[in-house]
Amino acid sequence: MGWELEESIYRRIATTTPTRILYLVLDGLGGLPGPDGRTPLEAAATPNLDRLVREGCSGIFDPVAPGVTPGSGPGHLGLFGYEPMTVEVGRGVLAALGIGFPIRKGDVAARFNFCTLDGEGRVTDRRAGRIPTEKNRELVALLRERVRPPEGVELFLETVAEHRGLLVLRGEDLGHRIADTDPQRTGVAPLPAKALAPDSERTARIVDEIVAKITEVLRDHHPANGILLRGFDTLPDIPSLQERFGLRPVCIAQYPMYRGLARLVGMEVPEPPASLEALPASLKEHWDGHDFFFCHVKYTDKAGEDGDFGRKCEVIETVDAMLPTMLELRPEVVVVAADHSTPARLKAHSWHPVPGLIWAPSTVLPDRVEAFGERECSRGGLGRQYLRHLLPQALAHAGKLVKFGA
Amino acid sequence: MGWELEESIYRRIATTTPTRILYLVLDGLGGLPGPDGRTPLEAAATPNLDRLVREGCSGIFDPVAPGVTPGSGPGHLGLFGYEPMTVEVGRGVLAALGIGFPIRKGDVAARFNFCTLDGEGRVTDRRAGRIPTEKNRELVALLRERVRPPEGVELFLETVAEHRGLLVLRGEDLGHRIADTDPQRTGVAPLPAKALAPDSERTARIVDEIVAKITEVLRDHHPANGILLRGFDTLPDIPSLQERFGLRPVCIAQYPMYRGLARLVGMEVPEPPASLEALPASLKEHWDGHDFFFCHVKYTDKAGEDGDFGRKCEVIETVDAMLPTMLELRPEVVVVAADHSTPARLKAHSWHPVPGLIWAPSTVLPDRVEAFGERECSRGGLGRQYLRHLLPQALAHAGKLVKFGA
Repeated sequence: MGWELEESIYRRIATTTPTRILYLVLDGLGGLPGPDGRTPLEAAATPNLDRLVREGCSGIFDPVAPGVTPGSGPGHLGLFGYEPMTVEVGRGVLAALGIGFPIRKGDVAARFNFCTLDGEGRVTDRRAGRIPTEKNRELVALLRERVRPPEGVELFLETVAEHRGLLVLRGEDLGHRIADTDPQRTGVAPLPAKALAPDSERTARIVDEIVAKITEVLRDHHPANGILLRGFDTLPDIPSLQERFGLRPVCIAQYPMYRGLARLVGMEVPEPPASLEALPASLKEHWDGHDFFFCHVKYTDKAGEDGDFGRKCEVIETVDAMLPTMLELRPEVVVVAADHSTPARLKAHSWHPVPGLIWAPSTVLPDRVEAFGERECSRGGLGRQYLRHLLPQALAHAGKLVKFGA
Repeated sequence: MGWELEESIYRRIATTTPTRILYLVLDGLGGLPGPDGRTPLEAAATPNLDRLVREGCSGIFDPVAPGVTPGSGPGHLGLFGYEPMTVEVGRGVLAALGIGFPIRKGDVAARFNFCTLDGEGRVTDRRAGRIPTEKNRELVALLRERVRPPEGVELFLETVAEHRGLLVLRGEDLGHRIADTDPQRTGVAPLPAKALAPDSERTARIVDEIVAKITEVLRDHHPANGILLRGFDTLPDIPSLQERFGLRPVCIAQYPMYRGLARLVGMEVPEPPASLEALPASLKEHWDGHDFFFCHVKYTDKAGEDGDFGRKCEVIETVDAMLPTMLELRPEVVVVAADHSTPARLKAHSWHPVPGLIWAPSTVLPDRVEAFGERECSRGGLGRQYLRHLLPQALAHAGKLVKFGA
């Protein structure tokens, strides 16, 4: 496939240099116009981003493929130069990453819901009346104390929120190809764990055994007297950024999901900054010993998901105001981009390509784009590309790719 | 793979017509801004190129993939519509092409250095004190006279320049997967030729035998009393432009490397024009009997490699001034493009996409680009593409691709 050929070339020509790449990701940055016809990025006052794009070059990027709305996993894999369609980071693993659970290779993770069962063992409420998170914690504590997994297997149970939780199995030769036990409707019993491949038969039986014990312990805890499992999954085995390009990457991110995704691609992940405003200080603290700085800002996406156009503008302006401090560290290359669009109007991720810029004063051809915005960037010198091509271009500007062929 | 699928379709729909495509390649054309903020192509006075782009359409092209700096081989393979990541033209073959050695399929070529060996046979200078080219010629003449290859093998030795030369073996069942004998450092003996695959075992022994004889002959020629070999290589087996598209291509180029690359893809390669200015006359001379005219201008790249911004402008203006004469031949389609960028600021090939234009008055949709320049073209109607897609579009405008599917 084309991307494999490219990947093999990129790896072959990659070389380690001391030059530094600041890779600033504004989650869900792309938007749609508000009442005055401008997107949040177009409407926000961003003198520093505008300077970067004026001195640099820009384009728009499809995180996965045209028309595809990416989740956080694929969006970030694209940013990190992976072909996101080939690396499945499933919901179980994302749930684990999302709560900061230190999932390891070989672990099998699944999301669970507490549910309500009637006297015949049939599901009457798939969400157990949306019990409060505090109740969830009490029940998880009880289960941790009372449910013993079979010999040779470790069991981890974690509260997520309300009726939602995470179950992780650790042990030798576990398989994750197991169908959901959630029947997706009421009036029927939870399904037994069904292996979808021979390598998961034994694990499916272990799951059934554990679910039986859990149901036994929960017997008197109506409405949360059962559990439903879905999204069985294991960490994908993907090559790290170190292996691929010889990078020494570090992640400066507040939110567990992105810290987890960074860990997945081999980044060092130090303590999170205490706030958005603390991001530059955290960056500075880790400046030595690294050459790739993934800085993640969550709040642009949050504002988009909340449909809050104004707050999205404010977050963008806050980040813009932080830029001069970050640039004082003198990175050779700066990239500002996003993992996907989250238009406030849609209150959700979307398929719209994301704007991105590369600033690299000694090697960039400035493209006459004067302001950092979706439509300005769509006329930029980088054109419209797959997001996975952004990182290799940043590497090139940083002198980290040597010539291919004589 | 994407490119294989496309290739199969292009081949299927290709048809031979009498229409002519002038394919003008300005080597290393792409650049970065000079002191006044303009690139050489933007700064040069190019009324004829500007007319072509105004009447035609334009875009920017990645010779290999975004971020990849191509050598001359991959750049030209992209121009000729090959997927350059799949065809390896190694250093030995390029060296042969570069000096115009008539290398044939099955030949094994390697570059060599004359080197200095001490009394124990250890390398003391990997470049033999950079002996003058004339000395190199003398030694090569001596070796040609005195070194006999084993039965069934022909040996060719050629001077390149200074301490550098080319060794070619011709015979049945030779293998080229042989590691360098150059140890890349002094104080150790040259390495024996090591086969990297079983098909090259016998050839490696032949190489060792020849190197022993050469060292014997050179014994009293200190400082050039040994040789080091690297870049063992053979001609890649690639389909010709004739096979792929039914073209009858001809190469009008002064420099051996590009003449060799043209031969590699099946072009007829007549005597080179005596100078850049003689290019139109040479083109005219070969106008009959061909439908694809690869005209190669080396001096844009040379000026870029020398860091000479002004000379790059002058070369571009010289080519521009030659265009009217070339257009008098009335080609139906004109393409002006490049194999890679060579910014004078970087004095080297770079990864920046190259500008390109297609002029074809009866079929082109003019894209409102008014001048031929990197940034103008980046807003052109062809967008940003892989360079290998340029040739098929030229074929289409020349009526050489029929409808696909009913």
